[in-house]
Amino acid sequence: MLSKNRIKFLKSLHQKKQRYEAQAFLVEGEKSLSELLVSDFEILELFITDAFFQKFENNILSKAKTYAIVKNTELESAGSLQSQSAGIAVVRMPVNQAPIIREGEYVLVLDNIQDPGNLGTIVRLADWYDIRHIICSSDTVDIYNPKTISATMGSFTRVGLFYTDLMAFLQANTISVYGTLLAGTNLHQIHFEPQGGLIILGNEAHGISPHLLPYIHTKLTIPRIGQAESLNVAMATAVICDNLRRQIPQNTLT
Amino acid sequence: MLSKNRIKFLKSLHQKKQRYEAQAFLVEGEKSLSELLVSDFEILELFITDAFFQKFENNILSKAKTYAIVKNTELESAGSLQSQSAGIAVVRMPVNQAPIIREGEYVLVLDNIQDPGNLGTIVRLADWYDIRHIICSSDTVDIYNPKTISATMGSFTRVGLFYTDLMAFLQANTISVYGTLLAGTNLHQIHFEPQGGLIILGNEAHGISPHLLPYIHTKLTIPRIGQAESLNVAMATAVICDNLRRQIPQNTLT
Repeated sequence: MLSKNRIKFLKSLHQKKQRYEAQAFLVEGEKSLSELLVSDFEILELFITDAFFQKFENNILSKAKTYAIVKNTELESAGSLQSQSAGIAVVRMPVNQAPIIREGEYVLVLDNIQDPGNLGTIVRLADWYDIRHIICSSDTVDIYNPKTISATMGSFTRVGLFYTDLMAFLQANTISVYGTLLAGTNLHQIHFEPQGGLIILGNEAHGISPHLLPYIHTKLTIPRIGQAESLNVAMATAVICDNLRRQIPQNTLT
Repeated sequence: MLSKNRIKFLKSLHQKKQRYEAQAFLVEGEKSLSELLVSDFEILELFITDAFFQKFENNILSKAKTYAIVKNTELESAGSLQSQSAGIAVVRMPVNQAPIIREGEYVLVLDNIQDPGNLGTIVRLADWYDIRHIICSSDTVDIYNPKTISATMGSFTRVGLFYTDLMAFLQANTISVYGTLLAGTNLHQIHFEPQGGLIILGNEAHGISPHLLPYIHTKLTIPRIGQAESLNVAMATAVICDNLRRQIPQNTLT
């Protein structure tokens, strides 16, 4: 059974401030939990339904130090999903550290992405296209927001995020920087350097911040054939990653 | 001022059954309303803020037969958006009729898409890539759902949707049919016929229905480099449309 105290704690982790104080976040839903169980993340607490336990018993026993079987309704009173049939894990937040970018690697850079669903979808896309690292501006929405974690569909276990001051990061950077803008070179004609690079995507409403524009070496634009004024940033990321992987199908120089 | 009666009517249009009974749907938000005002859709009722009126006065006066200035809070009590600073229009539903597909034209076919946001995003993508028509299975989510209309960002005014029995539609069809599956030909190697075609996208969880598979001439798969198990259907649509428009940049045979 979930005690009142545990419910209160789990609910507190819906809030960013409390997640960072506890250095912990929630993972919910069958897909995300099943990926969590085969990841390197540390599970601090695990509350699951009997049905989920039956299905993933081996992984649970080898990964979780402790677990409790609870009812769907208890999970629903503590979690962020309307319907809960799998479980909720409390997971230790990894340290926020700069990734080591290898030669040949491409990295996404997110400038002030605000929608949790967009960020989660971008993480899922990065995982599909084998992009291992994402650099986020400090004002980008929190990856540990339960909505973001859910939208990654488990991909948060394989893609590393680093929150930092983008201007300082770009000042220190030595590899090619691509930026997505409305008036750049047609993406279909872009040459992606085999040495690797950074690809900046901007805020949903305002695009890339003006103070970051001087750091962009190659401005790219997704060709528009019709009349929609813009594409959603996650859509833009999908199209850009697909074009990148058409040219540079792997992360290492061969 | 919005009367209790009008509020009740506007709220009733959040429900599919009542939209179809009234043959009317809601359009909300500045972007969607501004596109509506320059479209061919018939506006039955228009409730707008003074700020929106000031900004779009000419379009409003030339398009709307009648309008009323109301307060944000009144709009919020009647509409589906949490915050309302522009207005709400009641719009006549167009007739659900089969499109005339020209030679050289590509058309999306949606099989049981369930998420209103996904459908709206797909309509916005279609508009970006100049895809003029979308054929939807009868069980696909309603385009006139307020969440779907919002997600189109005004593109619902330029892309025609037709709801029908897909099996009957495909039986009568004579142009090439492409289907997105997990085990097809690499999208980057697909040849899109200049004569045009249909591109089928399947349900979020179950993909394309088994009974439609025999109608697919070319099975295509988005190349996966990393480890995510799947892509969201709207992401898949973005990547497929971009690949299509790389080869076939326009809707007519030249």
